[in-house]
Amino acid sequence: MTSSVMAVPDPSPALLERAAGVRRSAMALGQCSDGQRQAAVLAMADALEAARSEILSANGADLDAAAQQGLASALVARLKLDGPKLDGAIAGVRQVAALADPLGQRQLHCELDEGLVLERVSVPLGVLGVIFEARPDAVMQIASLAIRSGNGALLKGGREANRSCTAILSALRQGLANSEVSPQALELLTSREESLGLLKLDGLVDLIIPRGSNELVRFIQDNTRIPVLGHADGVCHLYVDRSADLPLALRVALDSKTQYPAACNAIETLLVHQAIAAEFVPMVVGAFPAAGVELRGDAAAMALGVSHAATEEDWTTEYSDLILAIKVVPDLEAALEHIRAFGSRHTDAICTADGASADRFLASVDSAGVYLNCSTRFADGFRYGFGAEVGISTQTLPPRGPVGLEGLVTYRYRLRGEGHIAADYASGAKAFLHRSLPL
Amino acid sequence: MTSSVMAVPDPSPALLERAAGVRRSAMALGQCSDGQRQAAVLAMADALEAARSEILSANGADLDAAAQQGLASALVARLKLDGPKLDGAIAGVRQVAALADPLGQRQLHCELDEGLVLERVSVPLGVLGVIFEARPDAVMQIASLAIRSGNGALLKGGREANRSCTAILSALRQGLANSEVSPQALELLTSREESLGLLKLDGLVDLIIPRGSNELVRFIQDNTRIPVLGHADGVCHLYVDRSADLPLALRVALDSKTQYPAACNAIETLLVHQAIAAEFVPMVVGAFPAAGVELRGDAAAMALGVSHAATEEDWTTEYSDLILAIKVVPDLEAALEHIRAFGSRHTDAICTADGASADRFLASVDSAGVYLNCSTRFADGFRYGFGAEVGISTQTLPPRGPVGLEGLVTYRYRLRGEGHIAADYASGAKAFLHRSLPL
Repeated sequence: MTSSVMAVPDPSPALLERAAGVRRSAMALGQCSDGQRQAAVLAMADALEAARSEILSANGADLDAAAQQGLASALVARLKLDGPKLDGAIAGVRQVAALADPLGQRQLHCELDEGLVLERVSVPLGVLGVIFEARPDAVMQIASLAIRSGNGALLKGGREANRSCTAILSALRQGLANSEVSPQALELLTSREESLGLLKLDGLVDLIIPRGSNELVRFIQDNTRIPVLGHADGVCHLYVDRSADLPLALRVALDSKTQYPAACNAIETLLVHQAIAAEFVPMVVGAFPAAGVELRGDAAAMALGVSHAATEEDWTTEYSDLILAIKVVPDLEAALEHIRAFGSRHTDAICTADGASADRFLASVDSAGVYLNCSTRFADGFRYGFGAEVGISTQTLPPRGPVGLEGLVTYRYRLRGEGHIAADYASGAKAFLHRSLPL
Repeated sequence: MTSSVMAVPDPSPALLERAAGVRRSAMALGQCSDGQRQAAVLAMADALEAARSEILSANGADLDAAAQQGLASALVARLKLDGPKLDGAIAGVRQVAALADPLGQRQLHCELDEGLVLERVSVPLGVLGVIFEARPDAVMQIASLAIRSGNGALLKGGREANRSCTAILSALRQGLANSEVSPQALELLTSREESLGLLKLDGLVDLIIPRGSNELVRFIQDNTRIPVLGHADGVCHLYVDRSADLPLALRVALDSKTQYPAACNAIETLLVHQAIAAEFVPMVVGAFPAAGVELRGDAAAMALGVSHAATEEDWTTEYSDLILAIKVVPDLEAALEHIRAFGSRHTDAICTADGASADRFLASVDSAGVYLNCSTRFADGFRYGFGAEVGISTQTLPPRGPVGLEGLVTYRYRLRGEGHIAADYASGAKAFLHRSLPL
């Protein structure tokens, strides 16, 4: 027997009250028109612009404190919000305002019987709980996506970004005060206790969005009953088939690993068909170390020039770094089996010129993204054309993969009758028509 | 600080192996054509028919054992599988074969750039874990829905239905053996240990579907990381507005409560506008007790003839029985506030002849179903025209409300390129087109 102890404190009365306030505001926000929500997001952008110097100086203070505490340089880089980065974020908020309205889409319309009409309409989720590590710019992005889609939000930034987040939230709420949307639709949480309490706000919070490390995501998944949108791992693969165009495959492999190695959609493992290994592995050995990548191979890859040995652990490790594991496989089926055993169902690619191999791979790999002859780095909401990205989800159920605004909406069934009762249909006195109506 | 201890045993090696077998079979099943999956479901129906007498006698043995153990009569009623009930279930399996294919639907098709084409296609979830309390007929329904939608399933019936479920599963697998689908796609779990181990099969099982009591659902939600499709509570409301057609409202209220009081979509609370309470409450007092319903009212309802007092607990109780709570409210807003505070976001209805009140109610109540002038009992997959029902979900995220086959599928992004790499777009050497293509 194993046991894991959930030691999450109950939300404080003050947090419950604030969350209830967000929920009330969100329910009013959910009934605002498309134009009203657009105007609110634009007002948020204007207010951010007006508060530009306050935000930059608050961020400066956070950076000073971080320097004093000797914060890791990667964390400092994410914390830093200079003028151009802030301007970019404000432009991003304006882009969110311009996105198509995700609400009020009729997805189903059916006359169940004469005078009894069913429709299914997209509606906001309600209230989002968002937990960031550092990254004050993400607060602007998620807050604007929330308001655009009619949702309230409880936002918890990293402790080291507290001053920045407070200044940003104050501007965002000031913007909402100049719109039809209540400023109470957005609340900033600042303490660790509040962020733990957030996990227990079932009934008040409808979706938790963690933006941070795998550990953060897993901790949250294990400690809340609220659905979590996020991904814990991104162990992505590129399989180079026997019939692949090898220079093309090398180019795709290099981009998939090096274009931004810290991203979840970067590859961690390169699988190479044995028939072309003697030609392709030396090409890899020639190109990757020159690009700063450490290669770790199985015995066959080492025999072809890879200098470090890969262990079993390498197949399941998300390096998030300039390291690549290489394995020579006997055939496509072995590659599929490796991905099935070690992949995280995020994004996996094949390079091949053979149509049958391509079809087999695209049909068999059950990842959110399966790619042919292109880089795994395309797994991204902007690149997919969604205009904005809430995050990338590795869960199996929708929304999965890169998630745009549609991840922040749900639907509701509306049924309008004229006194219809179920007993008439149970008894056979009446029968359903189920006639589709135009959407 | 509160803490709750998860004391769920790790899956045994034998269970892991069986689950891996189901997963492998499911991945092959997911690549079967529509016709192959239809034929497999029809073969399952044929095999059930061929095993009719074995199944009925196994059920007889379960019923004998239940009688010896003095099982509660409600449980015995659900356990019982006589000839007509079995024939109905087999007909249901054939109906599932006839449902439209939920797989291979292209939901998105976009040329990201010349030669780089994205599509989103519906695919099976993979493997379902289904936990029933008693109800051997549900095994046939869910197993056929699983195969129709390309999913494998681990099925765990109630212990008291063990012989029945074993006979049914043996027939279902016999049917699959006469088809293109591997019999291994369906596995029956029989012990409590296995059903607990199932909760820990993350990565092998993609969705857990509990069919049973609220306690069962809540236990499962609290003890697994796997998504759970189900509803924990169904506290549904009917609000009778001041402008309601009162005889119509009474008819709808009676059907909503009495047509099948054990169902989750039956109402538990009747909210009555004070302006018509003096007329409507006596109508309720005249009709409901005559239909066997015990009424529990607030002070205002009691002053109008309701004999039992309702306590705070009544507003949050799912009676699943012939009991109805009544509250007189000052206006529509108070009714909305009551539903917001005590509802379970399942299905709530208004009776009114006033368009503005109807619109306000349909826009404000954030339940999966919001109804106007008709019975809450219509919240059902068959009545909605889905042809079959996996269950009803009270979660906020899709799928919510009555869930048909679409609850058993997800989607996958397929991206086909010609050596496209992300660096070209990051550098500005190339720009995305994002041109929509026909679906």
